[in-house]
Amino acid sequence: MNDINFAVLGTGGIGRRALEVSADKDELTPIAACDRHGVAVNHDGLDVDELLAATEGNIASDGGTTVESGGDDIKEHGDDKGVVASTQAEPTETPIEDIIAEHEAIDAVLIALPNLEHDFIPTVAERFANAGYEGVLVDVLKRSRVIGMLDDREEQLEESGITFVCGAGATPGLLTGAAALAAQSFIEIEEVEIWWGVGLKSGYEDNRGTVREDIAHLPDYDIESARALSDEEIEEIVDAHDSVIEFNDMEHADDVLLERAGICDAEDVTVGGVLDLRNDEKPTTTTVKVTGRTFDGEVGTNTFELDDDTSMEANVNGPALGYLKAAVRRNWTGDYGVYGPAELMPGF
Amino acid sequence: MNDINFAVLGTGGIGRRALEVSADKDELTPIAACDRHGVAVNHDGLDVDELLAATEGNIASDGGTTVESGGDDIKEHGDDKGVVASTQAEPTETPIEDIIAEHEAIDAVLIALPNLEHDFIPTVAERFANAGYEGVLVDVLKRSRVIGMLDDREEQLEESGITFVCGAGATPGLLTGAAALAAQSFIEIEEVEIWWGVGLKSGYEDNRGTVREDIAHLPDYDIESARALSDEEIEEIVDAHDSVIEFNDMEHADDVLLERAGICDAEDVTVGGVLDLRNDEKPTTTTVKVTGRTFDGEVGTNTFELDDDTSMEANVNGPALGYLKAAVRRNWTGDYGVYGPAELMPGF
Repeated sequence: MNDINFAVLGTGGIGRRALEVSADKDELTPIAACDRHGVAVNHDGLDVDELLAATEGNIASDGGTTVESGGDDIKEHGDDKGVVASTQAEPTETPIEDIIAEHEAIDAVLIALPNLEHDFIPTVAERFANAGYEGVLVDVLKRSRVIGMLDDREEQLEESGITFVCGAGATPGLLTGAAALAAQSFIEIEEVEIWWGVGLKSGYEDNRGTVREDIAHLPDYDIESARALSDEEIEEIVDAHDSVIEFNDMEHADDVLLERAGICDAEDVTVGGVLDLRNDEKPTTTTVKVTGRTFDGEVGTNTFELDDDTSMEANVNGPALGYLKAAVRRNWTGDYGVYGPAELMPGF
Repeated sequence: MNDINFAVLGTGGIGRRALEVSADKDELTPIAACDRHGVAVNHDGLDVDELLAATEGNIASDGGTTVESGGDDIKEHGDDKGVVASTQAEPTETPIEDIIAEHEAIDAVLIALPNLEHDFIPTVAERFANAGYEGVLVDVLKRSRVIGMLDDREEQLEESGITFVCGAGATPGLLTGAAALAAQSFIEIEEVEIWWGVGLKSGYEDNRGTVREDIAHLPDYDIESARALSDEEIEEIVDAHDSVIEFNDMEHADDVLLERAGICDAEDVTVGGVLDLRNDEKPTTTTVKVTGRTFDGEVGTNTFELDDDTSMEANVNGPALGYLKAAVRRNWTGDYGVYGPAELMPGF
């Protein structure tokens, strides 16, 4: 496979780590990155070490990811804000347009913008399509309802030559992929149970976007009310849970993505987990259990389990880049459209 | 996705069960099947129930799979032998050629011929290519050395428009797929351990091909010497092990297939397992353990585990058809060549 030139939209936690992990992956060359204030482009490949070092601490309260939202909460570093602290970056008012302007040099774009209004990523995809981009778009979304918005745009994306993989992080990405594979033993799936444990080594301070998004899954909150919370209010919620928050029946895209892949009904999928903000250890083991019936009439449960020592960061960014590579191979043979991770697995 | 018309070469245990499982899968229509004595073709779809009922007991000492080998050890059923017992089948001297003659109606072929000389399946692939077949070929091979023979023919297969997936059964198919997915947490893989347990419900009598092939993995045997064994000699070996045979450091294609996919070196992969011919229960749990290093410096082991109640048959045939479907989607977009199952997973 030839080298893949890719861009990252958003240089918050996920975007930064994707750049870092890509340095250890064959075939991947990051050539562009942006945040809301700046854009760095180098067709020969960005100097990731410099960019990460210069922008260390570049984590806004929303994860540093709300490019173009006009907020002002990126931590400053040196004289400049965010990615502009890198010598490779230029300030800009239009970071996404600046990346789109480079589209002919780009094979794939990782959209590392997890915590925005629901139609933001579909709209970004539309802008790439309008510009005539032929290539891959990958996001790491978690919410079910975004998928439908992408489907509404599928024809336009196909016409442009875009292969869009949505939800390619840890959940739904890695875990629905595992569920799709585990389902292969069966002819009928009765239940898929996804249970995750996250211990945020770096704590709330460095994972504000993720924590805020997770809080939106608590019974008394939704996306809008969680976005309206101040840092202090979030810290109060965290304290009220003694820094260990359990989630049940989450609106995670795992369900709709497994249904899209024909594996089971969305209602047969349950997603929950525990987030521990006190320490590095995972509070519970991340597990996927797929229960089904075999052709010879047995009922069994296949299990996929992540080691407690693999961090959320490792489990988001490895799969995101893995699905990105798989999508590029499809894109290069003319396979366009919107896919969930499970649809890239063996068929069910 | 449109309907997939597929053919099965070989109606021994694997071929028969693939037909059976396909009845429970969307999008799959079996339109042709053959064994060494006969061929059944119906472009509107075979009557699988009739074919399986009519040929029940059609298990030769080689698994019923050595079409064209001229042997005479298929169990008789009624007046005819093998697939010819079905009202849908005709006797033939050239079963594979007869299937190839139908190639324009066929999207995919499952080659269910596990126990033949090493170059047999590569040669079959060549014959399809020579006939101008555009479509998918899938085998369920286990031996490492066959892959190289397929690679030697890759250019010819690509020119014809063939997408070949080799080793798409339980091992290497399902388990290397799981290893590829489990590897996504890591930037470097230290070790992949594959350990399988098989309890053959149906016993030696109904699984002669599989048992013979497994015996070839014992330290004192190889393919040639195992093929030369009489049924009585095989039964003696089984008895000498009290019907429970443990295998270590097997020459299983899992190693080369994971190396092809760029996941680790072949020597970092170990394959072993236990075959119990006494009873239905698996003697040990089938497990894939992938140990690697994350980008943030931790070492961990992700685990994939099959329920003991899923039979070998379920774990071979589900994945074989699952990979077949995935390969057809690739084939229809012009993605030709030779792939291992792990290469169809997210990139590493």
